[in-house]
Amino acid sequence: MASRPILVVAGVGTGAGTGGSAARLFSKAGYRVALIARNASSLQTFAASLNESGGDAHPFPISSYTHGSIHEAFTAIKQHWSGGSDKAEIRAALWNAGPGVFKPFLSITEEEVKDTVDTNVIGGFAFARESILSFKENGLDAKGKRGTLLFTGATASLRGNVLTSAFAAGKWGIRALSQSLAKEFGKENIHVAHAIIDGGILTGRAKDSRDPAWVENEDVRLNPDNIAEAYLYLVNQDRSAWTWELDLRPAHEKW
Amino acid sequence: MASRPILVVAGVGTGAGTGGSAARLFSKAGYRVALIARNASSLQTFAASLNESGGDAHPFPISSYTHGSIHEAFTAIKQHWSGGSDKAEIRAALWNAGPGVFKPFLSITEEEVKDTVDTNVIGGFAFARESILSFKENGLDAKGKRGTLLFTGATASLRGNVLTSAFAAGKWGIRALSQSLAKEFGKENIHVAHAIIDGGILTGRAKDSRDPAWVENEDVRLNPDNIAEAYLYLVNQDRSAWTWELDLRPAHEKW
Amino acid sequence: MASRPILVVAGVGTGAGTGGSAARLFSKAGYRVALIARNASSLQTFAASLNESGGDAHPFPISSYTHGSIHEAFTAIKQHWSGGSDKAEIRAALWNAGPGVFKPFLSITEEEVKDTVDTNVIGGFAFARESILSFKENGLDAKGKRGTLLFTGATASLRGNVLTSAFAAGKWGIRALSQSLAKEFGKENIHVAHAIIDGGILTGRAKDSRDPAWVENEDVRLNPDNIAEAYLYLVNQDRSAWTWELDLRPAHEKW
Amino acid sequence: MASRPILVVAGVGTGAGTGGSAARLFSKAGYRVALIARNASSLQTFAASLNESGGDAHPFPISSYTHGSIHEAFTAIKQHWSGGSDKAEIRAALWNAGPGVFKPFLSITEEEVKDTVDTNVIGGFAFARESILSFKENGLDAKGKRGTLLFTGATASLRGNVLTSAFAAGKWGIRALSQSLAKEFGKENIHVAHAIIDGGILTGRAKDSRDPAWVENEDVRLNPDNIAEAYLYLVNQDRSAWTWELDLRPAHEKW
Repeated sequence: MASRPILVVAGVGTGAGTGGSAARLFSKAGYRVALIARNASSLQTFAASLNESGGDAHPFPISSYTHGSIHEAFTAIKQHWSGGSDKAEIRAALWNAGPGVFKPFLSITEEEVKDTVDTNVIGGFAFARESILSFKENGLDAKGKRGTLLFTGATASLRGNVLTSAFAAGKWGIRALSQSLAKEFGKENIHVAHAIIDGGILTGRAKDSRDPAWVENEDVRLNPDNIAEAYLYLVNQDRSAWTWELDLRPAHEKW
Repeated sequence: MASRPILVVAGVGTGAGTGGSAARLFSKAGYRVALIARNASSLQTFAASLNESGGDAHPFPISSYTHGSIHEAFTAIKQHWSGGSDKAEIRAALWNAGPGVFKPFLSITEEEVKDTVDTNVIGGFAFARESILSFKENGLDAKGKRGTLLFTGATASLRGNVLTSAFAAGKWGIRALSQSLAKEFGKENIHVAHAIIDGGILTGRAKDSRDPAWVENEDVRLNPDNIAEAYLYLVNQDRSAWTWELDLRPAHEKW
Repeated sequence: MASRPILVVAGVGTGAGTGGSAARLFSKAGYRVALIARNASSLQTFAASLNESGGDAHPFPISSYTHGSIHEAFTAIKQHWSGGSDKAEIRAALWNAGPGVFKPFLSITEEEVKDTVDTNVIGGFAFARESILSFKENGLDAKGKRGTLLFTGATASLRGNVLTSAFAAGKWGIRALSQSLAKEFGKENIHVAHAIIDGGILTGRAKDSRDPAWVENEDVRLNPDNIAEAYLYLVNQDRSAWTWELDLRPAHEKW
Repeated sequence: MASRPILVVAGVGTGAGTGGSAARLFSKAGYRVALIARNASSLQTFAASLNESGGDAHPFPISSYTHGSIHEAFTAIKQHWSGGSDKAEIRAALWNAGPGVFKPFLSITEEEVKDTVDTNVIGGFAFARESILSFKENGLDAKGKRGTLLFTGATASLRGNVLTSAFAAGKWGIRALSQSLAKEFGKENIHVAHAIIDGGILTGRAKDSRDPAWVENEDVRLNPDNIAEAYLYLVNQDRSAWTWELDLRPAHEKW
């Protein structure tokens, strides 16, 4: 029996954004999906909805993105799928966590700086560590890879700006990490990729709060399902030609 | 009867490199393929091989990449497929032309500077013009696009270096063009994308001339078929999340 | 009597590197110099040497680069020079702190990630906050400025690489901060600049530990005195044409 | 008797912009100044004004920025100052030529593309060639250099945009050239630098045509005299820490 690989997604929220779309698309594509986020109940609900559609998803809620809690989550993930007749291998991992703070520099508190940087950068380091350690246990797959580690970036990953001092610091930090890892682990056939999401995403919250004209206009906002397609494409890239970074934006975005 | 879209590829050479792989893959994916290059006889042979595999390809040799000859080629392309029962629409175009010169700056002749810059930049402008004028005649396709214009870039598109003064000047120029066009024509649902090819490509010539260990090692060289897959992915991206630029390199490339 | 402005330097070490050279050069140029570093005794010695050469320097040792200790240092700085007949204004500040860790990613401990990111990014935020709050108290000087905030960056500010995952994450983070601040506070005539130091610096330690041929070859290593000249140039730039970023490297550096 | 070095400036116009300010400042700093531009009469007038202020300037008008005419200009420059009692050495050169075209892509004619690219890129190559060949004849100066080659860049050197397809292609091309040359000739102690001018410059024409509020507001426009100061600073940088690129913008510029 062929092994069904595992995707680990950190930063799923309620399932109505990028992390959720990735979980759904990879689930349809045959992946088991391990869901990590901070809200246990919405995570449970979302896992159930994936399983109703024939998926094999499971929630792994954590209280915060520390090294310890991320390590525990990965241990639990491996444990959860260890009993089956096939070997459960973590083959893909998506770091989608790290909400931002958008405030004038002098209004950002010491705590907010710390939270933003810690969740994005320190959390990202811990997640990358667990993912890469997992990938190193794998043999090469049909594409010549041991695994793919994906990071969700943003416009603020490329540019600092008024109101984004803390957010950009976190996002640039995680982009630096992803580039370093791409160079360090490429030679072990571990693929690390980073996506610059440049524009407003049609998340569940955006659907509720934004102008209906924006919500309905496919030219002006990012559909998270299409972001997920980029992630699946990246995971399926062959070792002979893979991508560290791509940008994703709506057709009519001004940039 | 459903329309079969046309891909125009400029810079096909003998068909054993990136342009050829793109022609082959798009042909398999249902595209008619218009082949532009400077060597008429190898172009004829390559078109025949695509047609033997069930494709609908045609050679449009040109003597040089001037505005005039590129305009004539596009006119001939539209003419060639105009008689069918379906409307023949140019939906994708790949600018893959522009060979480089790698020499110490003081050894590069005035003629070589001119050739490199003219073929890459001036030729690229002409090709872009014809492509965009063609796309503007199209309605939106299922992905919400009128057409996709692709450019093959290189490491030298991002960095000038010893030996690459002329080549990099041409490549940076064409990258600037592609970014300008992406911003100008996105709002007309025309998608412009640029690929940074970072590493040695397993072209026909490379197969003949390079170390067999390199040729056989899938970790160290780019397979042009996998570059072509990236191009097909870009063409199929939805308007809600499309990419201006991605890089493509082999797993073990040092960068 | 004309006011002598204050330069605050964080990251002076023993005075034999970039921070020390900046302190020396600004001291000669008429600045009072507030020295911040973690080693109180070498800081005391270095301040004394500046004062022997006619300077007005004072050490403000701190135990770590936290918000609290940096705030206390700035308070002490203002207090120290408050008694004179002229108004003591902080007009320039240099964030030169943040030593790096160069190790394979999987060998970097949780603690090292945290130290690197916290010192570079969180410390940099705190230092920037105190500097900008100080500058906002100033009127415009002859160049049309309230103050200049300088950051010492590195090659790792631009590129992640094998062995630099943690260091680059910190350095990219601080570069993002500096760009955000440049954009946010330019309109208040506060100048924020970032220098990319690309190459080996002839610090005191380098003099002792590196190959004498390297030490003596002015073409291959950065003299910190010349880095300091760049900082003085930046501080003296007119409001009509100032620089966010420049790179500094030795003539023969390969890059 | 000490030698007075020569600065060659290409792109002086009427002397009321960046090239003119550089000529004036270097003239005051002791340089002989060779002025290259396409309008012979305004060039003559400007040279005379420099000479009235104690300078030693001379006009070298050319009909277009081709290899041939630039080569002739450099030959004439060396000839002009060859009779003196000291050796006349070209020690600095500024490529400030290359006016842009700002039009929608489809409105740019074949001729305009060619003019923009040829003047910026091909002309820049020819100017760089003559400058570097001249520098190679020099010994090291007090800063450890044979000469400094400066390029005036623009926002469009970094970003393609709507209306800038042709201008950006030229500007990116010349930036690529400058980076390649910096890497290739650094090891021969030839310094190549590139300035990104980001904002409106207070040229003679701008003084006449723009809003007086803008003209008088030192926070919002670039004073070409301050750009010139950056160029003099770059020329005076020591070999141990020199700059390839810096940006220059007014304090209140939005970027």
